[in-house]
Amino acid sequence: MADNTPLVGIIMGSKSDLPVMEACTAQLDEFGVPYELVIASAHRNPAKVHEWASTAADRGIKVIIAAAGKAAHLGGVVAAYTPLPIVGVPMKTSDLGGMDSLLSMVQMPSGVPVACVAINGAKNAAIYATQILGTNMPEYAAKMVEFKRVMAEG
Amino acid sequence: MADNTPLVGIIMGSKSDLPVMEACTAQLDEFGVPYELVIASAHRNPAKVHEWASTAADRGIKVIIAAAGKAAHLGGVVAAYTPLPIVGVPMKTSDLGGMDSLLSMVQMPSGVPVACVAINGAKNAAIYATQILGTNMPEYAAKMVEFKRVMAEG
Amino acid sequence: MADNTPLVGIIMGSKSDLPVMEACTAQLDEFGVPYELVIASAHRNPAKVHEWASTAADRGIKVIIAAAGKAAHLGGVVAAYTPLPIVGVPMKTSDLGGMDSLLSMVQMPSGVPVACVAINGAKNAAIYATQILGTNMPEYAAKMVEFKRVMAEG
Amino acid sequence: MADNTPLVGIIMGSKSDLPVMEACTAQLDEFGVPYELVIASAHRNPAKVHEWASTAADRGIKVIIAAAGKAAHLGGVVAAYTPLPIVGVPMKTSDLGGMDSLLSMVQMPSGVPVACVAINGAKNAAIYATQILGTNMPEYAAKMVEFKRVMAEG
Amino acid sequence: MADNTPLVGIIMGSKSDLPVMEACTAQLDEFGVPYELVIASAHRNPAKVHEWASTAADRGIKVIIAAAGKAAHLGGVVAAYTPLPIVGVPMKTSDLGGMDSLLSMVQMPSGVPVACVAINGAKNAAIYATQILGTNMPEYAAKMVEFKRVMAEG
Amino acid sequence: MADNTPLVGIIMGSKSDLPVMEACTAQLDEFGVPYELVIASAHRNPAKVHEWASTAADRGIKVIIAAAGKAAHLGGVVAAYTPLPIVGVPMKTSDLGGMDSLLSMVQMPSGVPVACVAINGAKNAAIYATQILGTNMPEYAAKMVEFKRVMAEG
Amino acid sequence: MADNTPLVGIIMGSKSDLPVMEACTAQLDEFGVPYELVIASAHRNPAKVHEWASTAADRGIKVIIAAAGKAAHLGGVVAAYTPLPIVGVPMKTSDLGGMDSLLSMVQMPSGVPVACVAINGAKNAAIYATQILGTNMPEYAAKMVEFKRVMAEG
Amino acid sequence: MADNTPLVGIIMGSKSDLPVMEACTAQLDEFGVPYELVIASAHRNPAKVHEWASTAADRGIKVIIAAAGKAAHLGGVVAAYTPLPIVGVPMKTSDLGGMDSLLSMVQMPSGVPVACVAINGAKNAAIYATQILGTNMPEYAAKMVEFKRVMAEG
Repeated sequence: MADNTPLVGIIMGSKSDLPVMEACTAQLDEFGVPYELVIASAHRNPAKVHEWASTAADRGIKVIIAAAGKAAHLGGVVAAYTPLPIVGVPMKTSDLGGMDSLLSMVQMPSGVPVACVAINGAKNAAIYATQILGTNMPEYAAKMVEFKRVMAEG
Repeated sequence: MADNTPLVGIIMGSKSDLPVMEACTAQLDEFGVPYELVIASAHRNPAKVHEWASTAADRGIKVIIAAAGKAAHLGGVVAAYTPLPIVGVPMKTSDLGGMDSLLSMVQMPSGVPVACVAINGAKNAAIYATQILGTNMPEYAAKMVEFKRVMAEG
Repeated sequence: MADNTPLVGIIMGSKSDLPVMEACTAQLDEFGVPYELVIASAHRNPAKVHEWASTAADRGIKVIIAAAGKAAHLGGVVAAYTPLPIVGVPMKTSDLGGMDSLLSMVQMPSGVPVACVAINGAKNAAIYATQILGTNMPEYAAKMVEFKRVMAEG
Repeated sequence: MADNTPLVGIIMGSKSDLPVMEACTAQLDEFGVPYELVIASAHRNPAKVHEWASTAADRGIKVIIAAAGKAAHLGGVVAAYTPLPIVGVPMKTSDLGGMDSLLSMVQMPSGVPVACVAINGAKNAAIYATQILGTNMPEYAAKMVEFKRVMAEG
Repeated sequence: MADNTPLVGIIMGSKSDLPVMEACTAQLDEFGVPYELVIASAHRNPAKVHEWASTAADRGIKVIIAAAGKAAHLGGVVAAYTPLPIVGVPMKTSDLGGMDSLLSMVQMPSGVPVACVAINGAKNAAIYATQILGTNMPEYAAKMVEFKRVMAEG
Repeated sequence: MADNTPLVGIIMGSKSDLPVMEACTAQLDEFGVPYELVIASAHRNPAKVHEWASTAADRGIKVIIAAAGKAAHLGGVVAAYTPLPIVGVPMKTSDLGGMDSLLSMVQMPSGVPVACVAINGAKNAAIYATQILGTNMPEYAAKMVEFKRVMAEG
Repeated sequence: MADNTPLVGIIMGSKSDLPVMEACTAQLDEFGVPYELVIASAHRNPAKVHEWASTAADRGIKVIIAAAGKAAHLGGVVAAYTPLPIVGVPMKTSDLGGMDSLLSMVQMPSGVPVACVAINGAKNAAIYATQILGTNMPEYAAKMVEFKRVMAEG
Repeated sequence: MADNTPLVGIIMGSKSDLPVMEACTAQLDEFGVPYELVIASAHRNPAKVHEWASTAADRGIKVIIAAAGKAAHLGGVVAAYTPLPIVGVPMKTSDLGGMDSLLSMVQMPSGVPVACVAINGAKNAAIYATQILGTNMPEYAAKMVEFKRVMAEG
């Protein structure tokens, strides 16, 4: 972490997802988790997504957070190209409330999981990614313990 | 058509979709529409899907029928790699009845449409593909007219 | 196309669908696709719909885009009277978010497909209609290729 | 009623609806209500439906019962062609349980109502049609009163 | 009708339903259908509902329109006490969009139908009630024919 | 309790609910809670329901368990006639899985609550009724404590 | 009651539930029911919830009202630690309207019931708690009878 | 791993979840991931769950897989007591298909994430847990790469 290499890769399908996802980057900042962020649609920019996902592990990324809405394929498309764990954030939609995003993300077929947090659960995605990092990086495990302690008191 | 080059490409995410999709191939056979069929998952075989979709137009394919279930990304992933029209067939699922497949297919974001027929609508996908062919191939237009005439009498 | 004969017929169930459907006509304009537009309800103006749908193919129309909301029968009613492919646009509704429109359009019974894009997917309907035209009109195929190239870069 | 002219017209979209709809004809038989029954799909046999619906009132029909499943347009299409009241029976479907049929029938737009009974509510459609007849035919009103009395005791 | 005896009885569960239901009374006024209107909840004022429903037929009422929201029992409770046909109007709700009202009204068990129009379908309830009256009162049948003619032109 | 006067009144809308509700009576038997059971539909037997509900408190009943399916009004109708607490059991339905029963029961309007347990939650209704009795009858409070202790060990 | 010991314990998962739950405390105040109120999340403050729930019965609490939203576990978690009856109030959510809260509360597994009132049914929870108290405290039974009488007249 | 200390803790709410969860343990066996398995309900055995969850990290567990159905609180309750990442498996239910389990698990409030795989996604939970282990244990990362390679060929 001394060299600030990103440990978390955040990808979102559209610039319009940024306001919601700021709760994610803010939480990672608070935990001191280095991350990179890219906006690329699985449908409009497939080559960019392919390139980004295929090289993520080699760049040092440990966990990927994928946020998308409607027919939210981004998490699944990224999962197809990397062995890293993907945390899906289904975005709320104006017509179906995000039920479409949720089902499109969470109902992944056998062999290629995407694990989803709640609709618009941007902050929780950051916490979850940090929990994953904490499984072998003691400083993040300690931050999670402290985070839960403060929350319990709050 | 004399050379029997496939005009319709059928792709499905899993061998388990075949029994339902036989209603599709049977209808294309009845219309005399040459087609090719491939089984490849957007998540398990992304490179195969990429290769197949990217070259479909050059192989002479005019329309693609994509069948998939659950978080049914196949149609959208294919759509990302080809300018051809995609007809999506959302497969019925044992838990949510196919609502997950339907929303994962039909709710495509702006710029990359997949047009869906009904849940398990395999036969209708064949008819729709033939209607598309019929927009400029008179023999298929004639078959559609005849098909509708017979149906109206049936 | 030199004579500007409409290739796409757009029909919508109510004047109130126009603001959403302007994304459709704007996209067709951008692609240079000639179209005609009619407002007619399957329920309030059945004779008008019947006449328009029955004669569409003879007027040179290749693809029909049907937009309707709630118990959205328009696509199906038009489909009953023409062998042309129908692209359905289920309109968002104020009570059920468009789930009613979507199911009323997409769940067509065997023999008479309507292929649906997303709820309020007006722009995608235009793209899809152009993809259909592109299956045999090279200028539209080229526009689709270019459209996807620009989108991938955007 | 002496001349046994049908007072209720029953139309269903598919022969497969008959087993469920036998509860409807059985109840009409029990009430002694003369009816006619036709199987015609709004999508496959539009001309037949049009003809049947347009002439129903002139043939002496007072109420129409329309049963259909999936994108269940039949009630609405009939309603477009007759001033008679339509009782819709949404058929249970194997994927979505009949939610598709229900929304496709009940969510009719302003100006053209279809009044729906429950999913697969064939018997209730018969009762409701008889209640309508009973509004001015005392023998049917009496039968409804008696029916409710027996039911309350049962 | 000369004596202006109400032919339609409108009952709604709450004063808050009035703004929506004004589309119903306005349409009945336009058709010249005499009606009475009462606000009474099946749950808060059961005796009042019982009394009103039980005596409706004797007061000359031919059709009842019942509007209610959430666990919308009003139509069913009224149906329990009268042989008259009930037209249910499920009110839109702020949390579930009216899906709760719709299912609570339309899914009536065997023997006691309530026929529902769309969520917030106040105007259609008026039209439907008039259609029922029109089955034996020629002046209302004529109004329905004229109404549909004007609508088709509009 | 020495005189075995029923403390819980169980009412269900249809004989077909009995097999599911046997888990309720079995649990009450196990707790030694005296109960009475009646089958009466809010729609088919309104007078019987009215009579039973209105007199329940005077007969010594402390809690009412109401089980019904589809447009499940029974709990609400009983609640209208008694100040006693009502525990609703929404029955599973063959088309919508019990979502209709659940919403029809739980979404009661302000002033007249019905508190629902899970779909087909017959056993839990018995436990809940016993918990209510236990608020002031020490022998039932003790049974609940023991029941939870055994369950925790099981 | 002379000593004003709380009889009802209200627990809610978040401060943001307070505005809705004020309808609950206002109604309890009107009935003169002494209550205590605590804000504690089952997930963020598990020890606090555990302590509060485990000791509620010993403090004299007779009924617990638990309000929570989204994956609303609070009622179930409290139920795990007390033999008292729990009244669940599922909070409306901005994405799914409260369907998530409702199902998370009401679908409790066998052995540990939570009985739910409507989404945002804060006032009804207070009435229900009072009904439970009324099963053996005559002053609250009398208040419920009076409350229903006034409501019926209102 | 030489000492076979469990790295994954599997907890499920009921013995009835075992047949579905065998796909999880089989996959972990195939990957050679040591795990421990416990059956304990958040509602029936809260103390056991508390004890197990609170000590999991100290026992060397890195990831927890929690499977539960209906009002599926287990994942959330475990998450309240440990800083480890939780993978939720919502179980299919016989009435609502698992929509209840899914929403009860995935819609966790801010601060305490549970990341869900698909309904009955037992195998995917095992894969996901292994992906998490693989973020810093090269042998599991290698197994994931190999697993994906084989799958792509299959």
